[in-house]
Amino acid sequence: MLVKELGEFGLIKRLSAGIVSTGRPVIAGIGDDCAALYPPEGKVQLVTTDMLVEGVHFRTSTATPFQIGWKSLAVNVSDIAAMGGEPTYAFVSIGFPRDAKVEFVDELYSGMSKMAEACSVDIVGGDTVSAPQVIVNIVLLGEVEAENLVLRSGARIGDALVVTGELGGSDAGLAILEHDLPIEGKERHLMPAPRVREGRLLARSGYVTSMIDISDGLASEVHHICEMSGTGAEVYMDKIPLADNVQKVAENTGRDPYDLALYGGEDYELLFTCKPDKVPLLSEEMQKECVTSLTTVGRIVDISNSIIIEDESGRSVSLTPRGYNHFTSAI
Amino acid sequence: MLVKELGEFGLIKRLSAGIVSTGRPVIAGIGDDCAALYPPEGKVQLVTTDMLVEGVHFRTSTATPFQIGWKSLAVNVSDIAAMGGEPTYAFVSIGFPRDAKVEFVDELYSGMSKMAEACSVDIVGGDTVSAPQVIVNIVLLGEVEAENLVLRSGARIGDALVVTGELGGSDAGLAILEHDLPIEGKERHLMPAPRVREGRLLARSGYVTSMIDISDGLASEVHHICEMSGTGAEVYMDKIPLADNVQKVAENTGRDPYDLALYGGEDYELLFTCKPDKVPLLSEEMQKECVTSLTTVGRIVDISNSIIIEDESGRSVSLTPRGYNHFTSAI
Repeated sequence: MLVKELGEFGLIKRLSAGIVSTGRPVIAGIGDDCAALYPPEGKVQLVTTDMLVEGVHFRTSTATPFQIGWKSLAVNVSDIAAMGGEPTYAFVSIGFPRDAKVEFVDELYSGMSKMAEACSVDIVGGDTVSAPQVIVNIVLLGEVEAENLVLRSGARIGDALVVTGELGGSDAGLAILEHDLPIEGKERHLMPAPRVREGRLLARSGYVTSMIDISDGLASEVHHICEMSGTGAEVYMDKIPLADNVQKVAENTGRDPYDLALYGGEDYELLFTCKPDKVPLLSEEMQKECVTSLTTVGRIVDISNSIIIEDESGRSVSLTPRGYNHFTSAI
Repeated sequence: MLVKELGEFGLIKRLSAGIVSTGRPVIAGIGDDCAALYPPEGKVQLVTTDMLVEGVHFRTSTATPFQIGWKSLAVNVSDIAAMGGEPTYAFVSIGFPRDAKVEFVDELYSGMSKMAEACSVDIVGGDTVSAPQVIVNIVLLGEVEAENLVLRSGARIGDALVVTGELGGSDAGLAILEHDLPIEGKERHLMPAPRVREGRLLARSGYVTSMIDISDGLASEVHHICEMSGTGAEVYMDKIPLADNVQKVAENTGRDPYDLALYGGEDYELLFTCKPDKVPLLSEEMQKECVTSLTTVGRIVDISNSIIIEDESGRSVSLTPRGYNHFTSAI
């Protein structure tokens, strides 16, 4: 069946019926002019939004609608995680051609619902419109206790720069998809797992001075933290933890494996700063609670030292902030 | 200058700098992973979102970027007004081609900022991405005291159906633009004025049992109220207040003037219900406070009577819910 046979209101009813609720109460959800919600009394309210456009952020030839739905919510959840918060309510605006199949939209919502369920998110509103290509815009609300809120701006000289998990895996996964390489690990690009539990653990520890999610590559995120904190940084290239698909993709494509980690986007790991002596304790807790590794990849230095990277031969060079940049980079 | 010469981060900086603030406090705004806000303690939180796509919702040949920006925020403000609330924070996701002119984006934001200023809205976050055409997605937060929240579902048998202002003006304005007619009033389509003050006055009166904004034509909105309230309705065609550009456009195009009011979209007036004996008092207050007229256009009846319209010759016919419907209607 095609979307145009169902019509806008038929489609909204169909999609609303399929949405799983976590049981979080709402005063009014889908079906009124606005969603009416209980505010997060006594907490800080978090809001983030991301727009994903077919042909720019994803291709329907390499990603299934389920994966597109999953990822479009996951990238927003990752932003909430980076503030130390928990996601709550999502609003999904979606555009697609009139001759799109209803099954396509069903699958996209199914992927989004699966991600929502995994992260305790309720989808309570949105908009459906016709468009020349598939467009997904998600707004995600979240909340965090004021004392656990972590901004990008709190890094202090001497702090360690630490990452969760491994890097470069998403960009390697994209290369696997684009060049149809016989290598495992393309799901690292297609279905990222946002680090909500990890972000909560770090925020609640009270040791984390700044945090950001790695959506545009490590180099770009280090620059963001330094810019907001008024500091410089040193990154040690040989300390960067590489995802298991990176080495093989680098060999197959002739790329430098560290390039994938530094400048490839969409790993959705967390980058944070804390005093170096707190890293062992946090690592142990993180391994125990979340089975996720922590790795120190650098340290915060005075702003006059700029932002540099020490390469494998021990040479210090300036770390350029390039990463994924809309409008200047090609897909 | 082209957007691609500025790059994503340069563009975000440029746009952020131009945004006017109402002075409402934020913990973190543009520049972190999420916006961090104080929640509306003790109130109901409202959230609405709308996606507008070039070629579907607007054409750059007939609307200036300033008008596109204005309207894209106005339609969201209208949703908050329909709940009896006040808008607070907006998040703007915007997609446009790499070779778009920076001046185009500046003007679009300028229109949005003007609307934001007029309605005391703070733009505190968003996303900028490249896309094949212009896409604007706005999420707007708002708040309302629990006792003043008005839903679509509260209409009771015997209530009057009342509208603010005049109808059909937006669709008439669209016809003026599309056929280049020598008639005044195209700005009714291009720059609608959302009825925030009117919605607040109605909500605070305590008399209003249900409310909705007229975004898809009166016929469609009457159906929404009846569906959510479990009632029927009678609409009196000859009572529908027509905007000043409707008659001339109808004559020029051979259309029925009431068709423009009943089935034309985007007037963004309010439709509400209340006991008939409260209408004179509300009318007087509305005229005094907002210089806006109120007109009774029908009444709520038992659901078994369905939804009918009494035409000019006194015949009662079924009121079809057609209005603007994505996926089934052509632009």
